[in-house]
Amino acid sequence: MGEFALIEEIRRRCAVPRADVILGIGDDAALLQPRAGSELAVSTDTLVAGVHFPAGTAPFDIGWKSLAVNLSDLAAMGAEPAWALLALSLPAADADWLAGFCDGFAALARQHGIALVGGDTTRGPLTITVTVHGFAPPGAALRRDGARAGDRILVSGIPGEAAAGLTCLLGSALLHAAGPVDRDYLLERLQRPIPRVALGLALRGIASAAIDISDGLRQDLGHIAARSGLGAVIVTDRLPHSEALQRAGDADQRLRWQLAGGDDYELCIAVPPARVAAAQAAAADCGTVLTDIGAFEEGDGVRIVDAAGADVALPRSGWEHFVA
Amino acid sequence: MGEFALIEEIRRRCAVPRADVILGIGDDAALLQPRAGSELAVSTDTLVAGVHFPAGTAPFDIGWKSLAVNLSDLAAMGAEPAWALLALSLPAADADWLAGFCDGFAALARQHGIALVGGDTTRGPLTITVTVHGFAPPGAALRRDGARAGDRILVSGIPGEAAAGLTCLLGSALLHAAGPVDRDYLLERLQRPIPRVALGLALRGIASAAIDISDGLRQDLGHIAARSGLGAVIVTDRLPHSEALQRAGDADQRLRWQLAGGDDYELCIAVPPARVAAAQAAAADCGTVLTDIGAFEEGDGVRIVDAAGADVALPRSGWEHFVA
Repeated sequence: MGEFALIEEIRRRCAVPRADVILGIGDDAALLQPRAGSELAVSTDTLVAGVHFPAGTAPFDIGWKSLAVNLSDLAAMGAEPAWALLALSLPAADADWLAGFCDGFAALARQHGIALVGGDTTRGPLTITVTVHGFAPPGAALRRDGARAGDRILVSGIPGEAAAGLTCLLGSALLHAAGPVDRDYLLERLQRPIPRVALGLALRGIASAAIDISDGLRQDLGHIAARSGLGAVIVTDRLPHSEALQRAGDADQRLRWQLAGGDDYELCIAVPPARVAAAQAAAADCGTVLTDIGAFEEGDGVRIVDAAGADVALPRSGWEHFVA
Repeated sequence: MGEFALIEEIRRRCAVPRADVILGIGDDAALLQPRAGSELAVSTDTLVAGVHFPAGTAPFDIGWKSLAVNLSDLAAMGAEPAWALLALSLPAADADWLAGFCDGFAALARQHGIALVGGDTTRGPLTITVTVHGFAPPGAALRRDGARAGDRILVSGIPGEAAAGLTCLLGSALLHAAGPVDRDYLLERLQRPIPRVALGLALRGIASAAIDISDGLRQDLGHIAARSGLGAVIVTDRLPHSEALQRAGDADQRLRWQLAGGDDYELCIAVPPARVAAAQAAAADCGTVLTDIGAFEEGDGVRIVDAAGADVALPRSGWEHFVA
């Protein structure tokens, strides 16, 4: 399978038509028509085999996740997805692998109407870099630097389930399970994350700041706090739980998954107290739940406390590359 | 050096201010203001260590080239560079390597006023994916599918010098040199290609089609021909030569470098005969030369002939990944 056959296969399997694509895959560059009067949100994320997913991961899941982690960035900006580019380095051109990868990518692309407009295929260690583009009205995008002291901290879904899935993947010996473990459910949370695109759009005009949780709730919340010049406090008893999470690990394990585990791709947002009900209603309309887990405050850093206000000790940070 | 220190170092070293960057590095996505009434040209290209450059290549050259190959795509569209994103996978966070890489990237970015607005840093085998954005007036971009039968084929600069540089790098035993070899000059042609951005802009309204020569003149010309539904003929005696190229190899070697060698990043364009003089004058204004090397014709494929019109035998294709 030569490079050009490979590109043709990607184009065929990932086709999503859009009227604003003037010229798609097949020239030196794509030609696109930005939406008049809108700001353009652009983000790029890389997945590396053996770092972001185990070497044996199903190609469908790799394709899905490589787009999902990028759509999650658009969701966190409150931007409407439009176009993607795919840079794919492959050790060998395996037609079956490629078909699975494209089908996973395309399944999510179709859900969000995002067109694959360009890319590059190269020989090399398995590495996938996706770049996504979306639109937001001027000044409407959700940034990290807009939180105010007193804003509530809301989080979507059940953070920690992806980390529990990773623990399942690495071997159940690590699990302090209280009952039968919902392995398939937790693995799906890890490998087919749902980017909260509709929620991000619904939160424009409601949230004062937002981020997606890719590196762990504590660390990502810390980015909003730092960029907004604030501190933040999470009350552990307020964290949302699922039965799957509760069966999978004991209280200590769950707390580590929820605060320091990565790969959730849920949204963590700042909301003024008067708009919490509106945010939660918007989330319900999107079929998800926003849980109030704490507040922003004057100061810096992220404090973790229990219901009585006592400090809770935890691992310092979420996932960070390049830390020795 | 942690991931966040690394990102901060990249941001500091690669800063190029632009008024149309609403929000740059540091949030979930960049927020950009597209130029009103313009089309947006977007392209992405990956360089993999050991595939696109030898492992020991100077980091400055890798940084330069990773942006250059992308700017070359914008040049081939006649698009004006605006924004870039950088996805960088590194085996280890080496501060000296990173400084050199950023300085090379930034040196070229500053020349073209292109702002680095986002990216991703991950641990993994050394792989660099850059995504670039540029502007073109509606309908003005240079595409591959616009050539007409009878259009002349013009090429900028001296194709083949980069391939000669690669031969130097791989070992002079491969050279059939006729004299002292201009090794440093040829290596610079390989490792610090000059994207023909100004030339691409100047050719809007003059050229009917364009491509950049990254995979070899014959193969890339074949893409214009195929997309335009035509054949093409190159007359070998018309190919431009430099003294460096003539000293580096004999006639057969030079012909292979010029037609099948990659990495030139010169432009190959289609121009109606009546506009050849205008194209060459525009090139002279940009400090480069466009040489008329043949013509498009009815049919398909690329024929190589000598001055007498006799077919010349050559290796079939340029560089193609994934060919067994």
